[in-house]
Amino acid sequence: MNEFSLINTYFKKGSLARDDVTYGIGDDAACVKLPPGMELLISTDTLVAGVHFLSDWDAFDIAYKAVMVNVSDMAAMAATPCWATLALTLPSNDAAWLRRFSQGLHKALALYGISLIGGDTTCGPLTITITMHGTAPIDHAIRRSGAGISDIIWLSGEIGAAALAVSFLNRSDINVTPKDQRILMKKLLKPKPRLDLANILQRFATSAIDISDGLSADLHHITKASGISARLSLDAIPIHSLAIQYLGDKALDFSLQGGDDYELCFTTKAETLDEMRAALKTEGLACFPIGMMVEGRGLCAVDNTGAKKILEPKGYSHF
Amino acid sequence: MNEFSLINTYFKKGSLARDDVTYGIGDDAACVKLPPGMELLISTDTLVAGVHFLSDWDAFDIAYKAVMVNVSDMAAMAATPCWATLALTLPSNDAAWLRRFSQGLHKALALYGISLIGGDTTCGPLTITITMHGTAPIDHAIRRSGAGISDIIWLSGEIGAAALAVSFLNRSDINVTPKDQRILMKKLLKPKPRLDLANILQRFATSAIDISDGLSADLHHITKASGISARLSLDAIPIHSLAIQYLGDKALDFSLQGGDDYELCFTTKAETLDEMRAALKTEGLACFPIGMMVEGRGLCAVDNTGAKKILEPKGYSHF
Repeated sequence: MNEFSLINTYFKKGSLARDDVTYGIGDDAACVKLPPGMELLISTDTLVAGVHFLSDWDAFDIAYKAVMVNVSDMAAMAATPCWATLALTLPSNDAAWLRRFSQGLHKALALYGISLIGGDTTCGPLTITITMHGTAPIDHAIRRSGAGISDIIWLSGEIGAAALAVSFLNRSDINVTPKDQRILMKKLLKPKPRLDLANILQRFATSAIDISDGLSADLHHITKASGISARLSLDAIPIHSLAIQYLGDKALDFSLQGGDDYELCFTTKAETLDEMRAALKTEGLACFPIGMMVEGRGLCAVDNTGAKKILEPKGYSHF
Repeated sequence: MNEFSLINTYFKKGSLARDDVTYGIGDDAACVKLPPGMELLISTDTLVAGVHFLSDWDAFDIAYKAVMVNVSDMAAMAATPCWATLALTLPSNDAAWLRRFSQGLHKALALYGISLIGGDTTCGPLTITITMHGTAPIDHAIRRSGAGISDIIWLSGEIGAAALAVSFLNRSDINVTPKDQRILMKKLLKPKPRLDLANILQRFATSAIDISDGLSADLHHITKASGISARLSLDAIPIHSLAIQYLGDKALDFSLQGGDDYELCFTTKAETLDEMRAALKTEGLACFPIGMMVEGRGLCAVDNTGAKKILEPKGYSHF
């Protein structure tokens, strides 16, 4: 099987049809139509074998996760993902691997109605780059830079579980039950991008980011882009129960710095708090107020005694 | 320097501003506006170290070429490239390499007015994926599938030189003068995507493809997508003079199968021939009629004696 039949067999077949795709895989470029009144959002994320995943993971999971981390970028912008391209670098043409990979890919894309419209397949060390394309009504995508003084900081869900799973992969001195391992690995392998928050974000958010690199590092991006500071209430931060169970006192620091959760951190104006709580209730969603934007630079945190400490923007960085 | 300052230093700085870019590098996604009446064209090409280039090449050349192969896909669609994302996987944070790489990248993008709007920087084996975004008036992009019986097949320029350069990289038994080596390496490293043909293609072309994988393989894609056959006049195929000089009788077969030229192969209706020739003259462009689309399947060729042979779609394939 050469490159072209590989693309046809595993990627063209199974790709979702969308009315706005004039044509997808099979030409020098794909062609799509953007609905009037919409802006185009574009994000790219690469997963490298041995860095973002282990080569011996089920290829289904690798593809699934590669899609989800890109969908999460769209969720953070309150955008709707529509079209994806895949640049897949493969050490060999392994039919069984490719079948599992394409199954995971198509499954994940179909969950969100995303069409695979193109890409490139090359030979080399296993690397997966997905470029995701989404739409949002003009001026309605949410950036990192819009947070203002007194804005409330929200977290869309519990943190710490995915980072704990990563931590298990690297050491054997933590004794975790098989059941807990399954729960944690699911958090790592099957993140749920928070597209369900798009309406809430578009109505209320002044800024948003996905916390793929960890809450501390990613909230730091919001403070930097918005030119102000953030004050976190440490006791308000929702930590996954297994992180508390296995890490005890260290769970909070660990969860602040641990990445891979793909929850969202966002800010809203204080005066919309009641309206926002009502909207969350209507949509059946729970979010956690974890602090407030304040004057200054950087990130600080207060605990329940009122003690204040500076939070370094520690988190995942490749270099 | 961490990942974020690396992106700021080498990629955000130096990126071209465009009015249609609402915002580029620095958020979870970039945001652009598509002008009314336009379609969006998207293509992706990956260059892998040791496969598409050698690690010891000047990083300027690597980046430059990575841009050009993607611009060529836009040229093949008669589209105008506008916005690019870069997924760069790097073995290490090497400042000198990154400086050269970003210089080549920005230089190449600026040549065509393309804005670098986003990407991802990861640690791993050197791999470069660019996703190019372009525009074309609705229904005016040229596909591979529109060629009809009796259409004339055109080649936009001479072929063989880039493949000859690749061939030199792999062997030492061909004795090439330093001057010729420079000419050939320039053909390989600094391809000129044929965006200058956009008007001609939009007015006359029924199908088009870039011949990055070699004329034989890529014209075969046109025949397959259009559901008919192509008959090449071997004597009409313009071969680079150095290929003839160094390869003699083997130059033609070599050039038919050799890739990396980034010229375009396209078809036009026979009845527009005079008008097309006039338009080429007006625009100061030269293209070469090399054959005709005919009934049947696959690809055949005739030489000046009238002898006919089947051309296998040999060309570059990763697997």
